[in-house]
Formats: sequence, structure tokens, C-alpha cells
Amino acid sequence: MADFDIDSVYERIDSDRKKHLQSMRRLLMQPSSSQEDLGIDECADLVADMYRRAGCEEVEVVETKGNPIVFGACKGASDKTLLGYFMYDTMPFNEPGWKHPPLGAKIVDMRLPAGKVKAVVNRGADNTKGPLAMFLNAVEACTKSEGRPPLNLLLVAEGEEELGSPNLPVFLMKEKHRLQRADACYFPYCAQDGDGSVNLFLGVKGVVYFELECSGKSWGRGPQEFDIHSANKAWIDSPVWRLIDALSTMVKDNGSRVMIKGFYDDVAPPSEEDEEIIARAAKKFDAKTTKESMKVKRFMVPEDDKVGLIKQYSFTSTLNIDGIWAGWTEKGSKTILPHKATCKIDIRIVPNQKKDAMMPLVRKHLDEHGYKDIKMREVDTGYDWCRCSVKEPVVQAMIRTLTKFREEPAVWPTSGGSVPFYAFNRILKLPFTMGGLGHSDLAHSPNEFIVVEGNRKIAGMAEVEKSMVYFMDEFAHS
Amino acid sequence: MADFDIDSVYERIDSDRKKHLQSMRRLLMQPSSSQEDLGIDECADLVADMYRRAGCEEVEVVETKGNPIVFGACKGASDKTLLGYFMYDTMPFNEPGWKHPPLGAKIVDMRLPAGKVKAVVNRGADNTKGPLAMFLNAVEACTKSEGRPPLNLLLVAEGEEELGSPNLPVFLMKEKHRLQRADACYFPYCAQDGDGSVNLFLGVKGVVYFELECSGKSWGRGPQEFDIHSANKAWIDSPVWRLIDALSTMVKDNGSRVMIKGFYDDVAPPSEEDEEIIARAAKKFDAKTTKESMKVKRFMVPEDDKVGLIKQYSFTSTLNIDGIWAGWTEKGSKTILPHKATCKIDIRIVPNQKKDAMMPLVRKHLDEHGYKDIKMREVDTGYDWCRCSVKEPVVQAMIRTLTKFREEPAVWPTSGGSVPFYAFNRILKLPFTMGGLGHSDLAHSPNEFIVVEGNRKIAGMAEVEKSMVYFMDEFAHS
Repeated sequence: MADFDIDSVYERIDSDRKKHLQSMRRLLMQPSSSQEDLGIDECADLVADMYRRAGCEEVEVVETKGNPIVFGACKGASDKTLLGYFMYDTMPFNEPGWKHPPLGAKIVDMRLPAGKVKAVVNRGADNTKGPLAMFLNAVEACTKSEGRPPLNLLLVAEGEEELGSPNLPVFLMKEKHRLQRADACYFPYCAQDGDGSVNLFLGVKGVVYFELECSGKSWGRGPQEFDIHSANKAWIDSPVWRLIDALSTMVKDNGSRVMIKGFYDDVAPPSEEDEEIIARAAKKFDAKTTKESMKVKRFMVPEDDKVGLIKQYSFTSTLNIDGIWAGWTEKGSKTILPHKATCKIDIRIVPNQKKDAMMPLVRKHLDEHGYKDIKMREVDTGYDWCRCSVKEPVVQAMIRTLTKFREEPAVWPTSGGSVPFYAFNRILKLPFTMGGLGHSDLAHSPNEFIVVEGNRKIAGMAEVEKSMVYFMDEFAHS
Repeated sequence: MADFDIDSVYERIDSDRKKHLQSMRRLLMQPSSSQEDLGIDECADLVADMYRRAGCEEVEVVETKGNPIVFGACKGASDKTLLGYFMYDTMPFNEPGWKHPPLGAKIVDMRLPAGKVKAVVNRGADNTKGPLAMFLNAVEACTKSEGRPPLNLLLVAEGEEELGSPNLPVFLMKEKHRLQRADACYFPYCAQDGDGSVNLFLGVKGVVYFELECSGKSWGRGPQEFDIHSANKAWIDSPVWRLIDALSTMVKDNGSRVMIKGFYDDVAPPSEEDEEIIARAAKKFDAKTTKESMKVKRFMVPEDDKVGLIKQYSFTSTLNIDGIWAGWTEKGSKTILPHKATCKIDIRIVPNQKKDAMMPLVRKHLDEHGYKDIKMREVDTGYDWCRCSVKEPVVQAMIRTLTKFREEPAVWPTSGGSVPFYAFNRILKLPFTMGGLGHSDLAHSPNEFIVVEGNRKIAGMAEVEKSMVYFMDEFAHS
């Protein structure tokens, strides 16, 4: 392995800076909204091209029952094999509030708590086409400079992450023979906060997503087939009020306490290892920066209780309303009694809750409270939660990388978000890590961005790419 | 008045049948959605043309601070003066569920409880450009046949009824000198049910319309400026859940019992005259037909309790949710914590509730329950309730007309809907009546229609127009 000269790769990254930025911008500008089935095939082809440029000997756009999975394989300078998991799909981008076109990949000046940076604003910049592009740039630099990356790579980019990855487990089962030689799974992700502090998440929450619909039709009361004149509210029932009644039985305290029987039963308290991890993370946690990045004024937990905050974020199972709608929602005063009302709900699940038990618990609650008529529809397949020990070599390689390039990371037991690590962990028995340097933010929000020119505190694109090469090299030697 | 030959007018109506239908269809096909400010001026001009064709000596499109009011005056064969109040605006027509284009004025076969008819399907057919066209057709036939209608007419067509008629009272105050010679106010309206039974409403409810908005910004908790990733639900509050919590404090029993302190305080019980009227109306009320027309399966009150049903419809003040929205309302599973939630509410008010007291009651309720941050916005100016005694000559003329052409009407104390009679009644001190034969339905719903070819039970267009001439003649002689 003496023949892998990491400094040459770093030089290559520096000299290809412009090309790398263009490659990222091109990927970002290609729409790939899976909710709307927009630009998916084109984006899969683009990712396949990027694999080829990165030096993959094997590239295949694998058809599934849904969106294609882009598979790639690349021989490396060691016997170790890293499985890179990526998503090339994004959320929709038609929400109001974008200051720059959501597909314009505009490079803008930005002032963060860590100081001035330049960032690319685009849907998917943070979640996660930006980090994907940086990782493939890093691999390309290895190939151009050294003929190959520091270790063998298996690359799996799916186009249905925002749909709950329904076909990923099927693919993993089917391709087990090609994939099981992997030693660990890695998800590229910018884990620096806006102040430059570095985080590492040891796991992810699971998620279940469904709709509740209250309609006159299934209730047998209220308007059955269409919205009627609101004068009839005097003697005809309202499915909208019924949905509100039903929802209000499910929570207390503005939705922060779930009243569904059994909802929290399987929630495991933090383990001793967790408690130690949390105590250490609390010392590094800057609540103010986190608030500022979301433009939020306060947390549910007092801000000086940092241990409490981290526990709240990491160990709470939530019932969130993602959307609700009924009747007339435009300008003016249309007077109608709507015939149905619908809401979208996500439940985030934590160890040891059982993903498949959550929707039945909600169903049971509704039934027991007299709302048998309210319909429940699973919107996507959802994810199970997943955790990895801090002691895993792949996690340790990531910690060493972050420490070398910036500082020892704040290690958190879990992210509040959901990534389908469970599939790699349970089907392929792989340990995993997510992360890397750099700062990107506003996933699922307008003005999503990724920093490309950093400063003393926040890594820019070139430095992130170097750290990814270093991480691969570290894991190759572990 | 011997020179007014009503039979010649009837003949004219019969011979002009085709032209009259075309005139109605033309008015219906002209969009005039005031909520969206669509086609308003064009529709006002069209109504002015119709006034001229009907024989008005004076026609003026009067500018207001909002949409123009089309004023017309026409000398008649007697000294009596009737003020015709009309609306030329409609609700929007972009809701799903239309089986025919909402502006196509298609003539379709329809099977009603009263048997087969032909009807025109169009936005505004029922509410109320259809009846307006029929009334102007009737006046035109008088003019063509007899040179003038049976009595003097003052015509006031406004284009803001669906906005709460904000400029109508201003117009009535300003034009008092021209309008105060009226003896009564009349609003053309098809008052037959789908089974042919004939109704007469002695009044209307008032209405107040507002929005409630719960936002992170005004709450100081939750996302402040945009929707954020729903992973943050664990430690950031939800304005959607807060709105649901707040709404759920305002009602019980799926919204049928309002819990706002003082809400029902001023509601007057039915008077002795009302009780008699209700008892008589109950004998004629066919609940089944009413349900069928709205495709509704059941009322809140048992169906055999007809007195109870009429009281429920006529004397209940309601708090209705016309619409609610927050976050992601399209296909799929966008996982966000929305930064605000909004709902539209209408309150229908009855004697002796005070229109201007209703919004403050809601405000007080919210404040006292800890929801000072929830914003309240009046959406339109609303109407006060209004009632007229059955003994008024104009009402008696309408009763005689309906009885002559079909049968003695079921007289109801009030409609559940709202028409700004209060303005005519309080500013010009006019008694009023609404009504006429014919059947139209589905105001504010898709597939709104008006019957144009009737049968033994339901009056078609020509017969409705004849009954309107008869009504004018009856009132002229009263």
C-alpha cells in the first residue's frame, strides 16, 4: 500500500477544484424529485457517468420495481471494501421562500456563525446530492492521481430514499453475493454545524409515514360526496371538526406528549455507553448555533440543560403532522362544509420500538376512541431505527479523520433523521458510519445549501474531499 | 292598471323561450368570480345590457371602492315600486368533481325526486345568476308586450355578495334619495325542493368569516420562518398541533356544540309566531328529498322529528371550518415540521346575536385558553341576520303567487344561508322577500344547476318567469 500517495491526491483535488464544483452543480441542477417522479432516470444516468469518471470498472443502472439503483464497483489499493450508500433523489422544491431558484445551483456569499463562506443553494445540496458529488470527486481524484482509491468500493445510489427506500432491501437481498464482501457501509454527509463544530451520529431514528382521512363517506355523517354550502353546518355534521377532535385525543401539550396507549412502551432509556457519550457531547453542543441555523427561537427543553436537550433530540419518539388540508384553502371566503379532511403524519421511532407496531397502535387508539371510520393509509414503507457502536473500526476511522482535519467530533448517539442503515445492517450485517466534514443545511426547507468555500472553521469543498480520501485510507489501514 | 294584460306577457314568455334560455346561458358562461377577481367588469357590463333589453330607462354601472354595482330604473304600470336586489358575482369554480365544464352552461337531462327535467349546469346557476336572468327575462317580456312592467322597478345588482357585500351599504346610504321610494325589496331565488315542494324563507342568517393562524413566529416557539426537517419535532414545537389543540377547545361533539363562553347567550328562542310557522312547515317538510339533493345520509337530529329539524336548521348558530391547511398537502411523504397552520371559519348568526360581538368572543376564548399568539383575521365584512314578518304585503304577494302556480308554500322562519337583506332593511327600512318557483341547487358545490325544463311538479324557466310577472302584478295591487 506504499504506492498510495495521499499528498498527490490532495494536489489533484486542489488543481481540479473548478471541475469538481462544476460536477456538483451539474448533479444539483438535474431535478430528481422522487415524490413527483421528476427527472429520476436522467439523474440515475448522470450518477452512472460520475461513477465512470470516478474510475469504477463496473457500472450498472439496475432496474427495480420503482426507481433505478445505480451500482458501481471499483478496485482499490487494499483488501478492505467500503460500501458507499447514496441517494440521488431529493424532496420536491416548489415550496415558497426560495431566495434563489431551487435548481439554479447559485453560488452565494453567506455569513454563518463561523464567519463568511460561499455556498451553493439548491434542492438536494444538503440532502444529499452535495455530499455525494464531493465523495465521487474524491474518488475521481484518487483514480486520476493513483490509479485507484485506497480501498475497494461498492457504490449503491438509490432514487427512492425520500419514498422510504421501498426497493433497497429487495436489491440488497438480490445482490447479496456482490455486496457481502463489504466491511462497512458509509453515507457521505456534512456533519459540521454552522459554527464549525464537528458532529458524528452513531445511528438514525426510524420513521413511519401515513395519512389519516376523515370523510363523510366513511363516517356515514356529514357531506358524503362533495363540499356543500356551509349553511348546512346547522344540521349536517363536519368531517373536519371530527378529524380535529380525533387528532386532539392523540396528544397533549401542543403535540409534545403522545397519548396513544403503548406508544412509548418499547422506548429504551439511554444505556450506560449512551450516557457517557451524551455527557461528552453536551460539553461541545452549542445550542445557539443549532437554533440559528433553523431560525428557531427556543427548544422544548431549557437551553442550559444540554444533556437534556441531546436526550430529547435523540431518544424521543415523535408524532408529527407534516401536513393537513380540507375545504377551501385559497384567498377569500368560500363558505362550504367540506366533505373530507386529511392529514399526513410521521412517527420517528427509537430503540427498541417496533416499526411495524406503530401504525397498529394509532389504529387501535382511533378505534377505541370511536373513530373506526377514520381511514389510515401508509404513504411509504418507512425505515427502522439503527445504531452502531462507537467502537466499530469504521466509526473510529471517521473519528480519527475528523480529529485530524478539525477537532475531535461531538459524538451523538443518533441523528433525529432517518437513513436506511437498517437495511445494510440487518441484511448485510454491516457496521456503518455517516459523516464527513463540511457544512450543509436546510434539508426539506427552502434555500437548502452546501458550503463550497469554507474558512478557518468550516471546511470547503476541497478540504471535505481530502478528508474523505483520508477516511478511506484510514479505514483501509484499520 | 287595466292596461296591463298579463296573459299577453305570458304568451310573449312562451314565444321568447329560446331567446330567454340563451340570455341566461350567456350570463352564466361569463365568469364573475369575485374571490378571484375574474370577469367582474365584463359581467357588470353584461348585466347593464340585460337591464337595457328589459326596458330600464336608467342604467348605470356605478363604481364603488370594490366591484361596480349595476343600477337600473324602470317605470311601471302602477305607483308601487319594487327594489330588485341581485348579485352578479359567483363563487370560484375550480373545485374537483364537475361532471360538465363549470362555465359550459350545458343543458343536461336530470332525474330528480320530482321526475325528469332538463337543467343548465354552471357555476352561479343556483346562486344566483340563474334566477337573476329569469327575472330580467320576465321584465323584458312585460316591456315587449305591455311597454312596461306591472310596477316601478329599481334594480341593484352587486358584484361582491360572495365577499360579504362590503360596498353595498355604502351605496345604499349614498343613493338613499333614489332608492327610498321603494316599497319592498325582492331577491329572485328558486325555492322549490327537488320533489317540487315549495318553500318560502322569511329571513336569513348573518355570517362572520375569519381566519385563524398559528405560526411559530407569533408563538415564539416552533419553526419561525419556514418549514424545517421533521426530525426536529423531538425538540422543536409544532404550530400545527397548537392550532389543533386550540380548535379542539372551541367545540365538543365533532363541532356541533360550541364551547366559547357567551357564544349562544343572545340566541333568541323561537317566538310564538315562529312556533306556529315551524309547526306548519314541518307538515310539509320532506327530509329525504333535502338529504338526497346534497347526497347526505343523515341529519344531526332524528329525521322523524321534523319540528326539531327545522329548529335546528333555522335557530342554530354555528362555528364551521370552511378550510384548513398547513405544510405538505400533495402526494407523498415530505417530512417537515410546518412553521404555520391556518384555518378559515364561518360563524352563522341568528336573532338576537350581535354580528360584531362574535369575533371578539372567539378572541377572548383564545386569549383565556392561553392562545394569545393565534392570529385572527377578518376575511370579509360579513352580514347581519334579518327577519321579516309573514304579514308583510310583499311576503303575502309571494305566498299568493306560489299558491296560485303550485301550492301553498312551506313557510320557514329563516334560511340557513346569508343574503344582505339587513342592509335594505336597516338603511332603507324595507320589508323583503326572497323566492319564486323553480328548482336550482348545489350552490358553492360542483355541478351547480338550475332547472330550465320542468315537469308537473317543478316549474321550468317559462313558468318561473310567468310567476315572477304574477308576483309583481300581485304586489302592484296590494
